[in-house]
Amino acid sequence: MSDLKERIELANKEALKRMINSKLYWIDIRKAIDTCPGMEDHMIMHAGPPTTWERMGSAQKHACLGIIQYEGWAKTPEEAEKLAASGEIKFSPCHEHNTVGSMTGATGPSTPVIVVKNEEYGNEAYCHFYENPDPRKLSFGYYDSYVHDSLKWIEDVLAPVMKAVVAKTGPFDVKRIISRALFMGDELHSRSFAATSLFSLEISPYLQEIDFDRKDRRDVADFIRRAEQFFLHFGMAGSKATADAAHGIPYSTIVTGIARNGVDTGIRVSGLPGRWFTGPASPITGLFFGNYTLDDAQPDMGDSAITETTGLGCSAHAASPALGLTKGSVDMALQYTQRFQSITIGSNPAYSIPQLSGGGSPLGIDIRKVIATGTVPTINTGIAHKNGGQIGVGNSKVPMEAFTKAIAAFKEEYQT
Amino acid sequence: MSDLKERIELANKEALKRMINSKLYWIDIRKAIDTCPGMEDHMIMHAGPPTTWERMGSAQKHACLGIIQYEGWAKTPEEAEKLAASGEIKFSPCHEHNTVGSMTGATGPSTPVIVVKNEEYGNEAYCHFYENPDPRKLSFGYYDSYVHDSLKWIEDVLAPVMKAVVAKTGPFDVKRIISRALFMGDELHSRSFAATSLFSLEISPYLQEIDFDRKDRRDVADFIRRAEQFFLHFGMAGSKATADAAHGIPYSTIVTGIARNGVDTGIRVSGLPGRWFTGPASPITGLFFGNYTLDDAQPDMGDSAITETTGLGCSAHAASPALGLTKGSVDMALQYTQRFQSITIGSNPAYSIPQLSGGGSPLGIDIRKVIATGTVPTINTGIAHKNGGQIGVGNSKVPMEAFTKAIAAFKEEYQT
Repeated sequence: MSDLKERIELANKEALKRMINSKLYWIDIRKAIDTCPGMEDHMIMHAGPPTTWERMGSAQKHACLGIIQYEGWAKTPEEAEKLAASGEIKFSPCHEHNTVGSMTGATGPSTPVIVVKNEEYGNEAYCHFYENPDPRKLSFGYYDSYVHDSLKWIEDVLAPVMKAVVAKTGPFDVKRIISRALFMGDELHSRSFAATSLFSLEISPYLQEIDFDRKDRRDVADFIRRAEQFFLHFGMAGSKATADAAHGIPYSTIVTGIARNGVDTGIRVSGLPGRWFTGPASPITGLFFGNYTLDDAQPDMGDSAITETTGLGCSAHAASPALGLTKGSVDMALQYTQRFQSITIGSNPAYSIPQLSGGGSPLGIDIRKVIATGTVPTINTGIAHKNGGQIGVGNSKVPMEAFTKAIAAFKEEYQT
Repeated sequence: MSDLKERIELANKEALKRMINSKLYWIDIRKAIDTCPGMEDHMIMHAGPPTTWERMGSAQKHACLGIIQYEGWAKTPEEAEKLAASGEIKFSPCHEHNTVGSMTGATGPSTPVIVVKNEEYGNEAYCHFYENPDPRKLSFGYYDSYVHDSLKWIEDVLAPVMKAVVAKTGPFDVKRIISRALFMGDELHSRSFAATSLFSLEISPYLQEIDFDRKDRRDVADFIRRAEQFFLHFGMAGSKATADAAHGIPYSTIVTGIARNGVDTGIRVSGLPGRWFTGPASPITGLFFGNYTLDDAQPDMGDSAITETTGLGCSAHAASPALGLTKGSVDMALQYTQRFQSITIGSNPAYSIPQLSGGGSPLGIDIRKVIATGTVPTINTGIAHKNGGQIGVGNSKVPMEAFTKAIAAFKEEYQT
C-alpha cells in the first residue's frame, strides 16, 4: 500500500470510529442567537452551501423574506425584499454554525433551536423545530399571517414547554430512539413516525409534571400527535453532531455533510475542512400532492441530507418499506440501501436494520468510492413549490460534479 | 363439488368476510360484573377451556386464590384455598362471557375490563388491563401485597383515568392502531410496543384534558411508558370481538378461538358453536429469564391466542423480525407466517405486512387444512412459573388432538 493510501485508510477508519462512537443527547432548547457560534443580529442562516441573495432560489428567498418580517426588520414583503437586496442582511449556511435547517433551512436570531450534545466528543449541534404538518410553512418557503402565528406559537409555547421537559428528563438519549425506530419502519428522514411516537411515549409523563397551563401542555401533546415528522429535527441535530465529530481529520475522504440550497448541492469532506464542493441541485422524482408537477418544484433543498451522511435516510431505506416512495416493497427499499453499501466504507452497529439481518446501516460515504463506482448518494426528501409550500415527497441525487471537484481538491491538498 | 363441500366453502367465506369487515372500537371501561354476560358474584373467569378446581394448573390456581383475596371473599391464602375447594366459587372460561384473559386470565367481578365494540356486527368483547411490566402479576399466577397494590391502583386510578380518556376521544379505532403497528415491527401478541407507542401518542392530548389529579395523570402516562405490552389487551378484546362475529355459522370449519388453561388447550369452531375441542397444553420452547428452565414452567396458558385466530401474533410474525425469538431474522419470522398460510383460507387486507409485499396476514384457520397438512398453529406467548410470575417468552403449539376431535364432531354434526 502506498503511504498516501495508508494514511487515507487510517484517517477514514478514525472518521468512521468517531461517527459510530458518537453519543447523542438532547440537552436544551435555546434561541439561535444565544447558542449557534457566529450567529449575529441581522443574519439569516440557510440550508445548503453558501449563496447570495441574487443566486438564491425562490423558495429560499421567500423563507428569508419571512424571517425578515418575523424578526421585525421590515413590515411588508416589499420592505423585506428591499432590505434583503440592500446587503444589510447577512446570509450564511447553517452548516457553518454547527447548525442544520430543514428544506429552506431559514433560521433567524430568535428562532428556537434544539440543542443536541455529542457527549463523546463534546461538540453541540442545533436544528430548528419541525414546523407544522400543514403544507404552509417557512421551512418550505411559505410565509403569511398563518405561518407567522405558527412560528409565534413555536417560540412562545412549544419551545418553552420542551425546554422545561428536557430540564425534567435530563439529557435525553436521541440515538436510542433512532435505534429503536429503525426496527419500527423509520429511516429517520422521510419517515420519522415511529421515532415521534417513541419520543411522545418517553416525554408523556414529564409533560404532566411541568408547570405550564393545561392548554399549553395539551396543545403541545396534540401538535406532536399530528406531526409525524416531529422527531426528524432532533435526528437532524443528532446527525450534525455526529458528522461534525468526524470533520477535519487530515487525509480523510469521508463525506461529513451533504446540503442543498435549491440551486446548488454541496458536500463537505472530512480531510478538506470548511470547504464546499458543489454541483447543480437535482430535480426531485417522487410523489406530488394534488395536481402539482415537477415544473412547480424548487430543485433539491435542505440540510436534512445530513441524515444520509450518517447512515440514516436513504442509506437506511431498507428499514422503511412502509415509506410511500417504495410502495411497501421490501426489495425496492433494500436496493436503495445496497446502493449506499457500494459507496461507504463501513456500517453503523447502533443503527441495525432487520432487513439486513440486523446488520448496521451503511456508513461513511467515501468520495473515492463514489468516483470509482459512478454511484452518487440518493436522498429521501420533501418537495417545495418554487413559491413556497410543500407539494410532495421524493428522491434526489447528489450531483457527480461535487465529487469530481472534491477529489481534485483532495489531490491538490495531499499529493503535492 | 359435493353439496357439503360447497356449503362449507360458502360458510367459511362468510366467516372470513365477517372477520375482515369487523370494525373495532374501544368504547368504555367497566367492571366485569357490570358488563360481561353471565358474570356473577363469587364467580371467577379464567383463561382456556372449562376446568375444575381439582384439574386446574397451579399457576392458574394461584391467580384464582389471588382474586378470592382481592375480592375480599377470604382473608388468607389458606382460607382462600378452602373456599376454592368448597364448591362455593364458580370457575368459568372467559371465552363463554365474551371475554378474554391474559395467561391465567383470572378475572373477578370487580376487575375493570376494556370494552371493545365491533361496530359492524354490534357485539362487544372484554379484556382486563395489562397488569405490570414486573414479572410479579396475577395474570402470571402471582399474588402478594405488591400484586394487591398493583391491582388496586389499576382499579382506583388507571381504570377511571382511561374511562375518562375514552369519554373524551369518543369511540377509539383499535384496528387502525393494529394496522399501523404491523408496519412498525409488532405482531400484536408477544410484541405490542409500536401499538402501545401509537396509543400513547393518540391519547396524550386527552390525558391533559381530563379532570384528574396531576399525579394520577402522570402515573398513568408513566405506567404506559414502562409497559411495552399495554396495548396487547386492547388488541385481545378486539380480536375476541372479531372472532365472536364469525362464531356460530353453520357448516363453517373456521377456528374462532384458541385458548389454554395451563393443562388443556382448546379450540372453538364456528360451525360447532359453544363447544370446546381440547388436547394437552404444550410445553413452551423459548427464552427463559435468568436461570429458569422448562421444568419451572406451567405449560401453555392464556386466551391471548385469540390474536393468532384473527391473523395476529404468530400468524403475523413476518411483521416482527425484531421479536427476540427469531433473533432479528427476517427469514425465520417469515417462515412462521408461511406456516399459517398453509392452514388458513385467506388473508386480512386490513392487516397488511411489509415482508409479504404489503399482502395481508393469514386469516381463517381451517380445521380441515390443519388435518390435511399435519401443521398445527404455533402461538407466540409468555411463560409463567408453575408457582406464578413471568419467567420467559416463547412459542407453543396447539395439540393436534384438538383438531382431530373437532373434525370428528363436525362429521357427526353435519354428515349424519
